[in-house]
Amino acid sequence: MKKIGVLLSGCGVNDGSEIHEAVITLLALDRLGAQAVMMAPDVDFEEVNHCTNQPTGQKRNALVESARIARGNIKDIRGISAQEIDALVLPGGFGAAKNLSNFASAGENAKAHPEVARLVKEMLQNKKPIGALCIAPATIAVILGADLHPTLTIGHDAGVAAKMEAMGARHQECDVGDIVFDEQNKILSTPAYMCAKSIKEAATGIEKLIKKLVEIA
Amino acid sequence: MKKIGVLLSGCGVNDGSEIHEAVITLLALDRLGAQAVMMAPDVDFEEVNHCTNQPTGQKRNALVESARIARGNIKDIRGISAQEIDALVLPGGFGAAKNLSNFASAGENAKAHPEVARLVKEMLQNKKPIGALCIAPATIAVILGADLHPTLTIGHDAGVAAKMEAMGARHQECDVGDIVFDEQNKILSTPAYMCAKSIKEAATGIEKLIKKLVEIA
Repeated sequence: MKKIGVLLSGCGVNDGSEIHEAVITLLALDRLGAQAVMMAPDVDFEEVNHCTNQPTGQKRNALVESARIARGNIKDIRGISAQEIDALVLPGGFGAAKNLSNFASAGENAKAHPEVARLVKEMLQNKKPIGALCIAPATIAVILGADLHPTLTIGHDAGVAAKMEAMGARHQECDVGDIVFDEQNKILSTPAYMCAKSIKEAATGIEKLIKKLVEIA
Repeated sequence: MKKIGVLLSGCGVNDGSEIHEAVITLLALDRLGAQAVMMAPDVDFEEVNHCTNQPTGQKRNALVESARIARGNIKDIRGISAQEIDALVLPGGFGAAKNLSNFASAGENAKAHPEVARLVKEMLQNKKPIGALCIAPATIAVILGADLHPTLTIGHDAGVAAKMEAMGARHQECDVGDIVFDEQNKILSTPAYMCAKSIKEAATGIEKLIKKLVEIA
């Protein structure tokens, strides 16, 4: 049974993992006979009220909130090495660009969370594949852009794509039902809710990505 | 396009809606060409830390937290009448037995949230179908048990089933991949995570229930 790391960043599109993307990922993995190894960084973030999309002034913790999606079955990313997983997937949501790196606020000057950067680099060193959904490819660009120039997609957002290219990544446009595969670096990406107008649109690309990720893991 | 009400109760299995069940419901509805009308009661609840499964002593709000699953597209149940939806589905999670009623603490003496009771009764009066997942059938028993003696399932949990029968409901045992259909009252139920050992097991019964619910809506 292949073990696929699922790197969460909270629970909710505006300050954490996009919930639909995370659950579609977990369901696709289970249906393909792969085991999800859920993890998140132990880092606090600014809570956003999802009714109003306004910050509340309160903090939440990405590991504690991600445990809601994981039904408690989650580990601090600090304790996970690339040795124990066959692939890694990053669902999107603003948390992927706020809590896994600070791309959402710092753009091309962003820095990644040190444990996220460590695990992503370990995956590359061990030639194990990575999948990134929605805005998560921006955080992959933060970590790998300058050294490996990975080819990634976040769909058709020219502003975000330009910032990723400023960090050294190559951006390839992609529709919501499709995936981009950087064969050399073994990195898959798909736009999901960067483009999707409905949950079934998001699911089409995610399911395609997860199938390919498990195949090459 | 059929409009199906999705009644949420927060965001997380231990104090709100079970996230996997809610998302599988939304995806199944979209793939069947139905429109989800997401709603929740505006009620505070005791927050549970999902890493430790312990109460934190803090409160959260079911409507505000449900907005995370709904990506902001959610209404207060108070503003929804049975006239504007063709069916209603209640995902599970402890929120369905803590925030939609107080069944989790009061058992057979439970009372439902008044707006939840109002809408469920309106659905019955208008002969529109209801689906209930996981522990949510217990809240249906709280609302309808004494008057309509609905046939419901929560799987194979004899203790919960006995409390539902004490309120006047009829309990029928059911495996995770199956559904129970009370034809007279047009109420469907499936055990989901009351029995499921994995997300794909939960999905099988939920997808079967949603397909039937949309057919008869």
